Amino acid sequence: MPVPPSPPVNQFEGGSVFLDGAFAPLSEAKISMFDWGFTRSDVTYDVATAWQGSFFRLDAHMDRFFRSLQKMHLAIPYSRAELREILHGCVRAGGLQDAYVAMVCTRGVPPRGARDPRQAQNRFYAYALPYVWIASREKQLAGIDLHVSERIRIAPESVDPTVKNYHWMDLVQSMFDAYDRGRDTSCVVDAQGHIMEGPGFNVFAVKDGVVHTADRGVLEGISRRTALELCAHFGIPVRVAPLPVARLREADEVFLTSSGGGVLPIAKLDGVPLKAFPGPVTTRLHDGYWALHDDPAYRDPVSYAP
Amino acid sequence: MPVPPSPPVNQFEGGSVFLDGAFAPLSEAKISMFDWGFTRSDVTYDVATAWQGSFFRLDAHMDRFFRSLQKMHLAIPYSRAELREILHGCVRAGGLQDAYVAMVCTRGVPPRGARDPRQAQNRFYAYALPYVWIASREKQLAGIDLHVSERIRIAPESVDPTVKNYHWMDLVQSMFDAYDRGRDTSCVVDAQGHIMEGPGFNVFAVKDGVVHTADRGVLEGISRRTALELCAHFGIPVRVAPLPVARLREADEVFLTSSGGGVLPIAKLDGVPLKAFPGPVTTRLHDGYWALHDDPAYRDPVSYAP
Ligand SMILES: Cc1ncc(COP(=O)(O)O)c(C=O)c1O
Ligand SMILES: Cc1ncc(COP(=O)(O)O)c(C=O)c1O
Repeated sequence: MPVPPSPPVNQFEGGSVFLDGAFAPLSEAKISMFDWGFTRSDVTYDVATAWQGSFFRLDAHMDRFFRSLQKMHLAIPYSRAELREILHGCVRAGGLQDAYVAMVCTRGVPPRGARDPRQAQNRFYAYALPYVWIASREKQLAGIDLHVSERIRIAPESVDPTVKNYHWMDLVQSMFDAYDRGRDTSCVVDAQGHIMEGPGFNVFAVKDGVVHTADRGVLEGISRRTALELCAHFGIPVRVAPLPVARLREADEVFLTSSGGGVLPIAKLDGVPLKAFPGPVTTRLHDGYWALHDDPAYRDPVSYAP
Repeated sequence: MPVPPSPPVNQFEGGSVFLDGAFAPLSEAKISMFDWGFTRSDVTYDVATAWQGSFFRLDAHMDRFFRSLQKMHLAIPYSRAELREILHGCVRAGGLQDAYVAMVCTRGVPPRGARDPRQAQNRFYAYALPYVWIASREKQLAGIDLHVSERIRIAPESVDPTVKNYHWMDLVQSMFDAYDRGRDTSCVVDAQGHIMEGPGFNVFAVKDGVVHTADRGVLEGISRRTALELCAHFGIPVRVAPLPVARLREADEVFLTSSGGGVLPIAKLDGVPLKAFPGPVTTRLHDGYWALHDDPAYRDPVSYAP
């Protein structure tokens, strides 16, 4: 489907949305209350970022989005090149340098009274907002305190966690637990007490120089992949396997990975300080994450010229 | 919060929505794409029905809605009396006799960049549409063929199923399985192979005169409750306990309960005809369900007068 001309820089304030085949200001970012994307959370999405005027690993995010669409029996009327053009257009129209860029596909609005998901026409939306951090810079420096919740992540047998999805009730409940206890954020576990993930991030432990993270039951985060690739590059041993809560609690270092800030060091678990904050391995990966933003293989500069 | 005057009958065509504190036509039924009710499915809802100009068991639906709000740390700015007034107003404005009437509360739109659910202002919506059937009258007469999926319902340890919610990915995937096999609808199981529920309904088996249905892991449907109360009234023995798939397959009769049609007889399981369709127990409960619509204790007539 043809993409309209990319809007000029700063056409809209603070961001921009693409819906019904056109670019619009954020105030128009609405969906029908009857879209099954809302009433059945029958939707998949992805979030890429732009940093200092360039997308970071956009290809990896588009790959994951197209894979999610396929697994969900969803389709968008745009090619990969057109999708890229739309995402660039959203960032450009909002005049953003550092951006949170979402692509969303919902099942769509059913014909009156219909129940069969095949009868709805899928809808595509995209938008760019200023970059969103899992925790503010100040909080990151002060030290994030992570609550390890006993809430159980929706099992992969019920909802495929490798399809990026909005099934977050478990994560939201764990956030309430965290905030009520004065913690900064939370992560949840599986039924066997292994660490899964948190609201918007994967979780890593470092013990005796080895980096540990969950092998299943979680979103395969692009930042998680970047961290694992950096470990390989630096020769840091990794163990991608079920990670018991006890192993996290006795870790030397803990960090999160997310498109909402890259590699984020954790200072405390449920109020108990970790041995190292920010630890040497976390620091190396953090610095490596941001250094990669200058790698031409991962950069896709937004053209702001008219 | 004051509710605006109930709009006159037939002010809007085919239904009506209440949002931002006012009644509006269905074409205005939209929510922000940034509402956490969408991006985190952080929302609860309920669906009541009106039949021949009267609500049916509206109190039970409002009770369940208020309980769900509380469990979710959500709040609406309306009292129970005001909620009732709004729901009546939606049906009246749409000039509907037989209606599907939804009340919805979302977490709301977060302040820019916020992640804490306590920082959003909760939003309330309601709407009335023409009555929605789980299966058309023709399909009901021809005989519904139910696919018993091997997909596993989101566990109650992850998402409380007694809070009516939009976490439906598992149910939607099971519907794809059903339609792809030429079946009419589907139900899902728990990890131990017990029957849970389907997309919009509870599931019952009748064997040797005893009515069986799941005790946990499912929404406590108001129609389920009506069916169980009718069993008590008629002296039909019930067993509310884990219901293995095998027990369903060897049942004499199977039926569904839903606000989308009351008591719905099943003709076949995965193409295999059941012993009785519609069976005598199902027929008794079906007729009892509709007869109850004349019971003053359960009727709440919509006032259509100006
Ligand atoms: C549940 C969940 N896990 C992990 C992540 C991290 O993924 P990524 O590194 O691709 O941002 C996210 C991102 O939003 C997420 O929502
Ligand atoms: C998952 C689920 N189970 C059961 C039901 C039946 O509940 P009720 O009888 O209150 O309509 C519904 C109704 O929508 C539902 O969504």
